[in-house]
Amino acid sequence: MLTDAIPLTDHHCHGILGADLDRPHFERFLGEGPRGTFDSALGLAVRRYCAPLLDLPAHASPDEYLDRRVELGWREVTARLLRGAGVTRWLVDTGFWPELDDGAAQPHSTFTVPVHPGVRHRIRDNGPASDPGLRFVARRDAQLAEFRDLSGGAVEEVVRLEQVAEYVIAQRRTSPTLFAEIENALRERARHAVAFKTIVAYRCGLNFPLVDSPPATVSSETRLSDPHLIGWLVGLGARLGAELGLPLQFHTGFGDHDLRLDHADPLLLTDFLRTTSGSGLTVMLLHCWPFHRQASYLAHIFDHVRIDLGLAIPHIGSRAGSVLAETLELAPFRSLCYSSDGFGLPELHYLGAVLWRRGLARLLDEWIADDAITTADAEALVLAIAEGNAHRVYPRSEECGASTRT
Amino acid sequence: MLTDAIPLTDHHCHGILGADLDRPHFERFLGEGPRGTFDSALGLAVRRYCAPLLDLPAHASPDEYLDRRVELGWREVTARLLRGAGVTRWLVDTGFWPELDDGAAQPHSTFTVPVHPGVRHRIRDNGPASDPGLRFVARRDAQLAEFRDLSGGAVEEVVRLEQVAEYVIAQRRTSPTLFAEIENALRERARHAVAFKTIVAYRCGLNFPLVDSPPATVSSETRLSDPHLIGWLVGLGARLGAELGLPLQFHTGFGDHDLRLDHADPLLLTDFLRTTSGSGLTVMLLHCWPFHRQASYLAHIFDHVRIDLGLAIPHIGSRAGSVLAETLELAPFRSLCYSSDGFGLPELHYLGAVLWRRGLARLLDEWIADDAITTADAEALVLAIAEGNAHRVYPRSEECGASTRT
Amino acid sequence: MLTDAIPLTDHHCHGILGADLDRPHFERFLGEGPRGTFDSALGLAVRRYCAPLLDLPAHASPDEYLDRRVELGWREVTARLLRGAGVTRWLVDTGFWPELDDGAAQPHSTFTVPVHPGVRHRIRDNGPASDPGLRFVARRDAQLAEFRDLSGGAVEEVVRLEQVAEYVIAQRRTSPTLFAEIENALRERARHAVAFKTIVAYRCGLNFPLVDSPPATVSSETRLSDPHLIGWLVGLGARLGAELGLPLQFHTGFGDHDLRLDHADPLLLTDFLRTTSGSGLTVMLLHCWPFHRQASYLAHIFDHVRIDLGLAIPHIGSRAGSVLAETLELAPFRSLCYSSDGFGLPELHYLGAVLWRRGLARLLDEWIADDAITTADAEALVLAIAEGNAHRVYPRSEECGASTRT
Repeated sequence: MLTDAIPLTDHHCHGILGADLDRPHFERFLGEGPRGTFDSALGLAVRRYCAPLLDLPAHASPDEYLDRRVELGWREVTARLLRGAGVTRWLVDTGFWPELDDGAAQPHSTFTVPVHPGVRHRIRDNGPASDPGLRFVARRDAQLAEFRDLSGGAVEEVVRLEQVAEYVIAQRRTSPTLFAEIENALRERARHAVAFKTIVAYRCGLNFPLVDSPPATVSSETRLSDPHLIGWLVGLGARLGAELGLPLQFHTGFGDHDLRLDHADPLLLTDFLRTTSGSGLTVMLLHCWPFHRQASYLAHIFDHVRIDLGLAIPHIGSRAGSVLAETLELAPFRSLCYSSDGFGLPELHYLGAVLWRRGLARLLDEWIADDAITTADAEALVLAIAEGNAHRVYPRSEECGASTRT
Repeated sequence: MLTDAIPLTDHHCHGILGADLDRPHFERFLGEGPRGTFDSALGLAVRRYCAPLLDLPAHASPDEYLDRRVELGWREVTARLLRGAGVTRWLVDTGFWPELDDGAAQPHSTFTVPVHPGVRHRIRDNGPASDPGLRFVARRDAQLAEFRDLSGGAVEEVVRLEQVAEYVIAQRRTSPTLFAEIENALRERARHAVAFKTIVAYRCGLNFPLVDSPPATVSSETRLSDPHLIGWLVGLGARLGAELGLPLQFHTGFGDHDLRLDHADPLLLTDFLRTTSGSGLTVMLLHCWPFHRQASYLAHIFDHVRIDLGLAIPHIGSRAGSVLAETLELAPFRSLCYSSDGFGLPELHYLGAVLWRRGLARLLDEWIADDAITTADAEALVLAIAEGNAHRVYPRSEECGASTRT
Repeated sequence: MLTDAIPLTDHHCHGILGADLDRPHFERFLGEGPRGTFDSALGLAVRRYCAPLLDLPAHASPDEYLDRRVELGWREVTARLLRGAGVTRWLVDTGFWPELDDGAAQPHSTFTVPVHPGVRHRIRDNGPASDPGLRFVARRDAQLAEFRDLSGGAVEEVVRLEQVAEYVIAQRRTSPTLFAEIENALRERARHAVAFKTIVAYRCGLNFPLVDSPPATVSSETRLSDPHLIGWLVGLGARLGAELGLPLQFHTGFGDHDLRLDHADPLLLTDFLRTTSGSGLTVMLLHCWPFHRQASYLAHIFDHVRIDLGLAIPHIGSRAGSVLAETLELAPFRSLCYSSDGFGLPELHYLGAVLWRRGLARLLDEWIADDAITTADAEALVLAIAEGNAHRVYPRSEECGASTRT
């Protein structure tokens, strides 16, 4: 197949759960609901495609698979799956690291507050043990380093707007310069990052208000939910992204049970896209399913929009080719990128790659057989989606995971 | 094919029109608009798959088909088609029985008010001829018995919330205990039923208000339309369903001309599903098309959601496999059930089964050829959708059509 | 293939850009955004299917294609492509003629105000050079005559409601009989037209208010945007269409960057369709993608609705068959019409026809191979979509482009 040996850039994924998992804990991560199941297209794909990398026959039973997974140990399994994906560059959202929520032992305990050097000095007075900023830096660096070791690829950081803001607000809510401090924290984080990301779809939906000025007051909630505040934050991210050359990723479409899917239709971003068109910002619409045709329309209309199918690909198994076909009806070929959105289980990072390769190969084989495209053009299209389109919009770190821009 | 000999549970259908039909009357029931047409995917399927059961060649012309249908008589035709469906268990919505609305002779004249034993005694004073409750019971029992005789399968009852409420309100609107009487009527009907059903999608849409208390006043309309009253009624059905172990079926998606399709998107149920998650209620989303991907997302996220494709399957003819494929992208395999939503014409009950068998068989043959699933797993999946998933959520009557629970 | 030799009626298209184009100017018309690209399904289709008509090999490079296009000259290229489409009847929207907006030489300079004979006399006093009504008539007649010459087919006119109204308002905004004058202008234009068209989807969206009376005041904007005024205008168009036997075309779904796609979902027309059902009006839903299943539902429910896939077909390339299949799931066979929505580039008029022929042929070949339809029925279906369905709803001009009804 055309796609077998192509190196990929996975431009949006998350960390790995560093723990050996029993079936309930494994299945919890097999779905976006409170718990998933092997009894699904995704479960079939794990058994079909991941089992052989663990030296099992294809279609091993769930229990055989999980026994062998524990036998090898999560570290070995993770290395095999991440390396098997053929990904040379991973852009990792560090804002939300997978964790077990039941107190089970986990080498990678999570720490979700982002570094904010602007306030680091002040709270350092309380001693390192209570300095969440320093601890975040140390943990994040360790997590990314381990991801790099296990995967053998370059690892770079995507910074989540909401968690930087939430951290600064938690520390400095009553400061008269609160909003400037949020901006400073984002600028500091951006020095070592390749993109911003927003999960506004989860908070007030994609029809957030387009506002230029922050709200008069900020509540003491730890989870941002005020639409005015979030709207301002997204606008800030868009402005900084345009200034610094960092794309702004939006969660859209399919996501976890914290989402209202009808508030995540990317068409709700139309006014935002009109506002940012020509500003220099690149907007990346993640996942999109089941609104992937709507997303492809936005990529068709707006030069600064890019899209992917993200976590839809690993979840839908052998249907990946059909969904790619629907997406390519209208999306310009420059606009589609590859990502796995893998979270917690390296099976997801691997299946994203395998199913994308198989689905796109099958689709292009059909197009070639139909004489709708030449082999050379098909190869160029594969390369573009695999990494070329991403490389054109994301800055390249000078050193893996530690790019510096000013 | 994998699916040929599998017995089905048709977990949502309606009664048969007991009449010999000319072409205009037959075509009226071939669509969900005021009138359908042979000139459609459904019409092709009738000629292709139903004609042989009437001893005609496949693709017989509409007039040949209808002439033969009259020659055999509706009773013989109904028996052949219902028995040909291979359905061993029918769950029948008795709230709305098909009828001809032009005064043509019909053995099964319709009587849509539901029994309400709580008021039966009082209105019995007016004599049996004027007692709608008693007449409903007698008619319903005769209808279900005839359905059982013609189909040769077990027949059980699904109770429609709106019509129980409308009946009680018509009799007792000014009673100070009206809402308790509605609840009592539902409890009484539930004793012999396997599920509740709501058509709130037709009344105020699926974004009905989630309210715990009934409204202060009830209008004298015979057709419930007050969103507050309907919201309370659906909440009552959800509470009773959880308590009594009866799933609550929702009409969603594709339906007749009384519907606004955009108000029937199952995503509008998200808040209701969050509220009922963990309550013990099972929610069954019927039909879903063209929002079947959205429905599969809800089944993915919420453990208590089940879905089907209902009347979409007979209507879309040879496209059934593609729509099943789209649905299985994300729906856990435990969540998908089979139904025909057949109404009036036994052709619909039959085509639902035939097209489901063919569509699913073709899809799974492709998956097997693609080595995406083993034959054993594919067989298990067929059995689950055919009846296993339904059997796990619907109570089993002790005797057909007359289960008793307290 | 079944569809190769079938003559088509293209019941909705636009004019041709009469100019030789360099790559930037050509690509501007290859998409609905501010600029399109060869790097898309549409670009592949141009190279695959249009190149051979310019004596080039299939899959010629973009630059080879454009060099040859200039070498032949736009007039020769247009004639080859339009004649190659196999269209015998073109219904052309004259309300918006394609133009280059950068002052480049163009033989067909655009003139978008429609004729309004009722005011022609008055403004004729200013002399012909300043009479936009007369100039519009002359230009339109020249444009349609040239289209007829180049295409070799019959050419008839579709009148856009908004531009007639905008023209009358521009001339007569403060007149006490303004609204009667708009109606008179539409009646005059209708004498030589086969349909009305509205772009209300672009102005206030398809959930425009259903109002019977015009607003009290009319602003001086040249571009209609008051929802009340537009709602009245659409209602007027519906009334005149029913009276005069002219279908009313609605832009729905996919369109250019001036659109909010979520406001163009044809389901938003449900109340309008209920209101006009039985009035004698035929409503034509254009384009529909990605809401084509929703549109097919409306065609299923409402006898007076017809649909097409319009500009989706040329844009989506080899996916045309799949989108046709999704549309035919529920659309009665009488309801689907063919159009290209070709605008500016005759490549679009040609590709609409070629991709429709290929897509429908492939779909029906599958149905025939599956024994879901007979060859005779498939041929009848092709003829119906190709032209029969359109001929049943559009009046036939007595002479091409100059029909007269009173």
